[in-house]
Amino acid sequence: MFKINENYLKLPGSYLFSTIGKKVNAYAAAHPDKKVIRLGIGDVTQPLAPAIIEALHKAVDEMAAAETFRGYAPDLGYEFLRNAIAENDYRARGCNISADEIFISDGAKCDSGNIQEIFGQGNKIAVCDPVYPVYVDTNVMAGRTGVYDSAKETWSDVIYMPCTAENNFAPEIPKERPDIIYLCFPNNPTGSAITKPQLQEWVDYANKVGAVIIYDAAYEAYISEENVPHSIYECEGAGLCAIELRSFSKNAGFTGVRLGFTVIPKELKCGEVSLHSLWARRHGTKYNGAPYIVQRAGEAVYSPEGKRQLKQQIAYYMKNARYILEGLQSAGYTVSGGVNAPYIWLKAPGGMSSWEFFDDLLERANVVGTPGSGFGPSGETYFRLTAFGSYENTVEAVDRIRAL
Amino acid sequence: MFKINENYLKLPGSYLFSTIGKKVNAYAAAHPDKKVIRLGIGDVTQPLAPAIIEALHKAVDEMAAAETFRGYAPDLGYEFLRNAIAENDYRARGCNISADEIFISDGAKCDSGNIQEIFGQGNKIAVCDPVYPVYVDTNVMAGRTGVYDSAKETWSDVIYMPCTAENNFAPEIPKERPDIIYLCFPNNPTGSAITKPQLQEWVDYANKVGAVIIYDAAYEAYISEENVPHSIYECEGAGLCAIELRSFSKNAGFTGVRLGFTVIPKELKCGEVSLHSLWARRHGTKYNGAPYIVQRAGEAVYSPEGKRQLKQQIAYYMKNARYILEGLQSAGYTVSGGVNAPYIWLKAPGGMSSWEFFDDLLERANVVGTPGSGFGPSGETYFRLTAFGSYENTVEAVDRIRAL
Repeated sequence: MFKINENYLKLPGSYLFSTIGKKVNAYAAAHPDKKVIRLGIGDVTQPLAPAIIEALHKAVDEMAAAETFRGYAPDLGYEFLRNAIAENDYRARGCNISADEIFISDGAKCDSGNIQEIFGQGNKIAVCDPVYPVYVDTNVMAGRTGVYDSAKETWSDVIYMPCTAENNFAPEIPKERPDIIYLCFPNNPTGSAITKPQLQEWVDYANKVGAVIIYDAAYEAYISEENVPHSIYECEGAGLCAIELRSFSKNAGFTGVRLGFTVIPKELKCGEVSLHSLWARRHGTKYNGAPYIVQRAGEAVYSPEGKRQLKQQIAYYMKNARYILEGLQSAGYTVSGGVNAPYIWLKAPGGMSSWEFFDDLLERANVVGTPGSGFGPSGETYFRLTAFGSYENTVEAVDRIRAL
Repeated sequence: MFKINENYLKLPGSYLFSTIGKKVNAYAAAHPDKKVIRLGIGDVTQPLAPAIIEALHKAVDEMAAAETFRGYAPDLGYEFLRNAIAENDYRARGCNISADEIFISDGAKCDSGNIQEIFGQGNKIAVCDPVYPVYVDTNVMAGRTGVYDSAKETWSDVIYMPCTAENNFAPEIPKERPDIIYLCFPNNPTGSAITKPQLQEWVDYANKVGAVIIYDAAYEAYISEENVPHSIYECEGAGLCAIELRSFSKNAGFTGVRLGFTVIPKELKCGEVSLHSLWARRHGTKYNGAPYIVQRAGEAVYSPEGKRQLKQQIAYYMKNARYILEGLQSAGYTVSGGVNAPYIWLKAPGGMSSWEFFDDLLERANVVGTPGSGFGPSGETYFRLTAFGSYENTVEAVDRIRAL
């Protein structure tokens, strides 16, 4: 008789956003007259920028003629896109990353879930707490996390690095030594950022203890402050210890278009083995490339027109962020984030738990947020709102919350 | 110090098609004057059908307006596509598969590589020999295949089911009992097919011994004979033991568009655990959906116009297949396949090995095929040609081979 992967059965409950989706759908079905405003899941609402639409149409037309039709993409992705990324995201910021260290994918969620595969079973992972659930869940599926303590909501073999108001939502170097460190800055879910010297400390630590950093920079486009690094490769020595994950979902509204990339510098090695070669093997064996038309859309993100239009799009969302931040602050909420990230992190009022506040907000204000506890035990009593709604909905949602 | 997944180091050489690509590129670079014709990798060459182009443009326009913009797709894929699949690929053939048993993905390569993740470490896999390399390679990466014997080119914990001229390229029930059986019909690489009674034997066997069948039906659109099943669910009891993988790459030319799906009937269980729930969890945690515009393109495959146009496209490729089959037969080659599949499988002449014939054909005829030995030990001395070239190139390639 065949056997299943028993690790899957250890996962408590379903994926956070699936649970939220079900709750919201149930509420909406029971109350068809209510206008539910969703500031929960980090999905964007603004349409694709004109430069991207134009690139998509053009690429679709290419697929209509035998002379310009494109079949399987090159393993790492098309050069036109990898070159644009290397130039704009890295060389323009003084980072020494070349096009052949960039792997195009269909999104940072897949990459952040799949990247653990190239590491051995016995590695100990460290994560911020709260944290994007995919990092831990995919390590659970791989059997790397030990035993679940349902009271504490923690795994025995995971090192949790609490990020709370007490440490300004910045993780501290853990006492126990990790092998793989997941960092995400600007942070999902707390919306916090760290400075370049702070990130340099992590790079130095990883190089000292022989750890690898998986750096999720999905929200870098929202950075507004000068001293906040856009890439971990701005730090010295990061090429020796860090993998960087990037997404087009939030900087260009590609949540439904699907495009992302992973950077693995060739100098990043375990003994003689380069992680680049392992990821290349995985990419070539288990993946078949992002669609040609989508890679062309990605290229348009870096065109002068695309850049200009997307700057406006991000400004639009950050105006929402400011409205939420200031609106809730003035209503007496304890709020952070929203300056270098599209997420606002607030403390549930009146000693409510995260899910109590979720239910309360859904019920009384018809506003959907994300319970902080869904991101880890230190997220309990916190709550995440996103700036990705329309301005009108954001204003209405904040005003409803203020009126409670 | 972090540790890598040592299983990756066990993989002999690089992924087959990457190796071929490198060889061909090197030859083309050294002989810029030669016109190399590629009948190797199974990539299509005909442009997307007009109905699909129209659907793509329409969906792109939807992404340009806030009212019709789509962000994250539903976990399993859009209902419009899953309904079209359930209706056309299954209910129309009398298979009892519902839309919520269908998981949309970005292609059958990813699905066939990822599906092993939901199974435990201790399962013994059985594969046809020769076989699409992804099935074995991804189990190697997961540490499920034992020790590699480089002389025999086999893994100690894999059950190989030889498919050669002696058994008409149809696998026989293995002596040793497998837990997971990979079957692909119409077959890649041999181009062979099996009848419904033959497939029913496999279903009955799997149900008897408690094995699960992973049935890759990527080439079903090429079936021309009456008694060949298009889906494993045409067989009685298949819902209890079989997962089916499907692709849009070959029936609709989506190799560069990326779309596929996996069917897991809800009745397929290991004890109390449904495989459907495990795959749903994987899909929800490690994947974020195929692009909206691509899912709309998939829907167009099932429109009356789409069906009519794609029937012509398949007829075009099958005309190529016939030309190769008959041309090589008349030149004295031992050839099979090409009737229910776009692949022609031939015996290398004069006692040559598969790679010797590859090099010879590339050098003397400037034609690229795929060495049979790349698909497994029983593929040695065989060679695969695909019907996916243009008709003109196919004719020229066959005529060049005949002239050798």
